[in-house]
Amino acid sequence: MAKRPLEVLQRSIDSHIIIRLKDGTEYTGLLAETDNYMNMILSDAKEMHNGELVARFGEIFIRGNNILYIKPDNAIL
Amino acid sequence: MAKRPLEVLQRSIDSHIIIRLKDGTEYTGLLAETDNYMNMILSDAKEMHNGELVARFGEIFIRGNNILYIKPDNAIL
Amino acid sequence: MAKRPLEVLQRSIDSHIIIRLKDGTEYTGLLAETDNYMNMILSDAKEMHNGELVARFGEIFIRGNNILYIKPDNAIL
Amino acid sequence: MAKRPLEVLQRSIDSHIIIRLKDGTEYTGLLAETDNYMNMILSDAKEMHNGELVARFGEIFIRGNNILYIKPDNAIL
Amino acid sequence: MAKRPLEVLQRSIDSHIIIRLKDGTEYTGLLAETDNYMNMILSDAKEMHNGELVARFGEIFIRGNNILYIKPDNAIL
Amino acid sequence: MAKRPLEVLQRSIDSHIIIRLKDGTEYTGLLAETDNYMNMILSDAKEMHNGELVARFGEIFIRGNNILYIKPDNAIL
Amino acid sequence: MAKRPLEVLQRSIDSHIIIRLKDGTEYTGLLAETDNYMNMILSDAKEMHNGELVARFGEIFIRGNNILYIKPDNAIL
Repeated sequence: MAKRPLEVLQRSIDSHIIIRLKDGTEYTGLLAETDNYMNMILSDAKEMHNGELVARFGEIFIRGNNILYIKPDNAIL
Repeated sequence: MAKRPLEVLQRSIDSHIIIRLKDGTEYTGLLAETDNYMNMILSDAKEMHNGELVARFGEIFIRGNNILYIKPDNAIL
Repeated sequence: MAKRPLEVLQRSIDSHIIIRLKDGTEYTGLLAETDNYMNMILSDAKEMHNGELVARFGEIFIRGNNILYIKPDNAIL
Repeated sequence: MAKRPLEVLQRSIDSHIIIRLKDGTEYTGLLAETDNYMNMILSDAKEMHNGELVARFGEIFIRGNNILYIKPDNAIL
Repeated sequence: MAKRPLEVLQRSIDSHIIIRLKDGTEYTGLLAETDNYMNMILSDAKEMHNGELVARFGEIFIRGNNILYIKPDNAIL
Repeated sequence: MAKRPLEVLQRSIDSHIIIRLKDGTEYTGLLAETDNYMNMILSDAKEMHNGELVARFGEIFIRGNNILYIKPDNAIL
Repeated sequence: MAKRPLEVLQRSIDSHIIIRLKDGTEYTGLLAETDNYMNMILSDAKEMHNGELVARFGEIFIRGNNILYIKPDNAIL
């Protein structure tokens, strides 16, 4: 039972999520892959600073140890 | 016996809690899931800065290594 | 023998302690639970900044990796 | 299944990628080697600060723990 | 042989030592307990900032990962 | 296959390399020894700040966790 | 072969070395003990800031994780 938050994250694959990093940067996109380190691959991703669009990425690999939180974009986590 | 604080945290599932991160941000909500890394899923969550409401989340996954403390909102921990 | 400081900490359960975090914040309260990561649950706890009372908590779970030191409040460690 | 982001990274060998470090520096080049720590060897690499070319390297070994994200330069990740 | 600095530290139990933390704070006292994480319990301890006495503690538990160095106060290490 | 960047580093022994640390300091010299933590011994080494020579060392042992990147000085990595 | 830098360090016991910490402080002395964490005991040690003598220690135990580099003082590493 002690691994359940990560299992919930696994079930979020193919959902739209928002990732906030420790430095405040946010990435939104479709969660394509994730693992137990919270490494994530987002597709059709955007980078946002203070709510403003900074960049678009077809795909981006985000290293898990930089992540502060993850939330569903407009869907179930 | 050396694992008991985490067991207490497991028993807080379905309680309302307040999480403070190292940077001072606070999240309140219903603890839906947690694990031994203190990763947490809150539902019906709010983000607070200096006591002011910043954002609301239906669900949010918070990475455990950013957490400073956890306390019950108005319930037993 | 190499685990003895943590054993001393275990024996402090039900004593009043003061915890100082790396950022200077202090928490005082009754040590209800602790583990080998120095995660701690305090009951009847207070948060102090520069000696001033900031908040009171019926119970609080403090993540061990933020801790600088622990001392007895007015009792044996 | 929990290791899949790193497997995707392995399949990016011989693709052009952009690596952003935590301090904002970016490296672009051909991914020659990578491992599970996200250590990377880029060939025909460039270092960029704020979009400006700072240096060119025939080969560079980047330590994985400094990495924020990795994205394809103009190819599949 | 690769564990000998920690063994030397174990043999310092019951000696007076000075501990300097990464933030420059110093603690002096009698080393009552230590372990392989360099967690330490000092008794009859003083906290010093820039050579000035800040506080006295009957006992204090210092988390090892904050420590910069340890030296004998006026005794063998 | 997942260990190959470190194997490439091992094969750089006896080559001239440039090491950049996270704080921007650079060391150049002949790579005499390295291991899987990226600890390195350079011989005939120089320390450079902003391209200026700061110090020369017959031999220097650099702790791997401070390293940002490694590149060949004028040779294959 | 992947452990050789640490073996070289072991062979430096009884040599005079200079240790630089991440914060720029330097310690010189005779290396009395070391281990695989790079914890070190120096005897007849001096603490230097910007080349100026700050303090002398009969013996000092330096925690390995603060170390940036180690070099021979006027001897082989």
